[in-house]
Amino acid sequence: MAITIAIDAMGGDFGPDVTVPAALDVASRVDDARLVLVGPAPVLEQRLAGKGAAGRVEIEHATEVVGMDESAAQALRSKKDSSMRVAINQVKSGRAEACVSAGNTGALMATARFVLKTLPGIDRPAIATALPRARGHVHVLDLGANVDVPAEILFQFGVMGSTLVRCVSGKDNPTVGLLNVGVEDIKGSETIRRASELFRGSSLNYTGFVEGDDIFNGTVDVIVCDGFSGNVALKTGEGLAQMISRVLKEEYNRNVFTRLAGAFSIPVLKSLRRRMDHRRYNGASLVGLKGTVVKSHGGTDALGFARAIDVALAEVRNNVVEQLELSLGPDARET
Amino acid sequence: MAITIAIDAMGGDFGPDVTVPAALDVASRVDDARLVLVGPAPVLEQRLAGKGAAGRVEIEHATEVVGMDESAAQALRSKKDSSMRVAINQVKSGRAEACVSAGNTGALMATARFVLKTLPGIDRPAIATALPRARGHVHVLDLGANVDVPAEILFQFGVMGSTLVRCVSGKDNPTVGLLNVGVEDIKGSETIRRASELFRGSSLNYTGFVEGDDIFNGTVDVIVCDGFSGNVALKTGEGLAQMISRVLKEEYNRNVFTRLAGAFSIPVLKSLRRRMDHRRYNGASLVGLKGTVVKSHGGTDALGFARAIDVALAEVRNNVVEQLELSLGPDARET
Repeated sequence: MAITIAIDAMGGDFGPDVTVPAALDVASRVDDARLVLVGPAPVLEQRLAGKGAAGRVEIEHATEVVGMDESAAQALRSKKDSSMRVAINQVKSGRAEACVSAGNTGALMATARFVLKTLPGIDRPAIATALPRARGHVHVLDLGANVDVPAEILFQFGVMGSTLVRCVSGKDNPTVGLLNVGVEDIKGSETIRRASELFRGSSLNYTGFVEGDDIFNGTVDVIVCDGFSGNVALKTGEGLAQMISRVLKEEYNRNVFTRLAGAFSIPVLKSLRRRMDHRRYNGASLVGLKGTVVKSHGGTDALGFARAIDVALAEVRNNVVEQLELSLGPDARET
Repeated sequence: MAITIAIDAMGGDFGPDVTVPAALDVASRVDDARLVLVGPAPVLEQRLAGKGAAGRVEIEHATEVVGMDESAAQALRSKKDSSMRVAINQVKSGRAEACVSAGNTGALMATARFVLKTLPGIDRPAIATALPRARGHVHVLDLGANVDVPAEILFQFGVMGSTLVRCVSGKDNPTVGLLNVGVEDIKGSETIRRASELFRGSSLNYTGFVEGDDIFNGTVDVIVCDGFSGNVALKTGEGLAQMISRVLKEEYNRNVFTRLAGAFSIPVLKSLRRRMDHRRYNGASLVGLKGTVVKSHGGTDALGFARAIDVALAEVRNNVVEQLELSLGPDARET
């Protein structure tokens, strides 16, 4: 049976310039994927004309667009026919198995939460994403949905992260670490130390505190943190990667010899860029909702957006929402 | 007149193996520096024998050593003759203008605070350090001394950071940014938004919220944050830099062609490594104390430790403590 993904075709910095080619790319690659582009029908029809995607890429009409700077409350209240809202509605009504949007994170989380509701046992959904390492990757959550996070909610993030990784990476019992400013038991805030006790008393494969360097250079499968420090870590990494790439470029352009070395190094630098390419890691999961919603980076291109659609497909195929419900359900909570 | 720096000779992962060569290096480079190595006299005398440093590098006897994992409370209570404590005492008694230690951060901050006390108007000292950018650098504080930080204290960090940068970088009115998870006014916690209002109402050159990517890839001179997110950002950067260096090495070792490209690229990679070298940025200032105390990374080598001594010398030369007292004094607070 085909898997249907509703796509907020108007979201992100580039809207249909990115979402339409990405949908066509996925349709051509993935046999059982059906893509529903949500947005103004005339605009989308024109984009699809002559692409021969009939039956695999469809259009669902929506008249409004949520702005990238619009507040979540405003989007919820006044944009009931936005491409974002209608895409999420498709999941609610069962016409799509998942929704992907590059629209603004606050509005997407608020709308998804309002329309789909949270899973039983979940107080607040979190944003989870995979980040690259020299070997493999790590899943980090929360990345910005929740700024002040009590111990119980950090623990819920751990349960959700562990289940997500078990489902999509096929690891039986993923290791879980809690982000702190030191690895000793006495480090961190009261909240962090209490959360650590909850993890220790659970059936999760909890390894204890981890520090910032464990994100890109550690071994734990899941890192749990509040949305503030998670967002800071993610963006600090982005900034440093851009800075190193700038410095490398400068150094290779220093003189005729370094430019020659640069020419020789093109395959190496290409390979480095490919391995570090944040587009390959595009697609953050909004976990804890009664439905699969994936958030794409707003500034990504078609390659990156297609990768976010792939993330949604993988979650649907691996029944992430059902598995989360089982991990969080009353039976799980009693143990 | 000579500037005297007291050195906790036993602190850090390598103790006198690193601190003694670093002191000798500074003594040979800096004409008006006098270094006092604090630690067990027989050990240090043996290290200095035949180095011809008489009169420039001296020894102050101390019998105990604070362990790298020792708790701050334990160090304070039971190690009254530690090299760390005696080095800080030198500042208190006026026999030294500053103290440098690679010992454990918690014990150093607690002991320095207990012995030297905080400046009037300062509730909590902070840890500040310079971090590299493609052009110049940024000062970030706090980096781990304070985990839960109310708005008023974040504002004090801003005043201290601005003064520190004005003194040591010679910038008249450094720009100050507040680390947040977005640049819009509605982003972040109540605390962050209240702190932003305090900054806006002050005479600081406040530019508003900044995000994690502004640390390594932005333009603001001072970034203020709580010690938790500051520490996470710092260590995330360390981990990513190590990971990129590992991936680069792997890519250059892939086959005979990439190894050739690697050989051609040696000067470029050396230059990159030099510009990114964290040893060049070693030396974090404990700001807000009645005295200059600089914390070196525990695992650094003699080059890195000497750089931390240079940071202490620069702060003394530029009267950072006196200038902080002026910025924070009753006159400043009334404006």
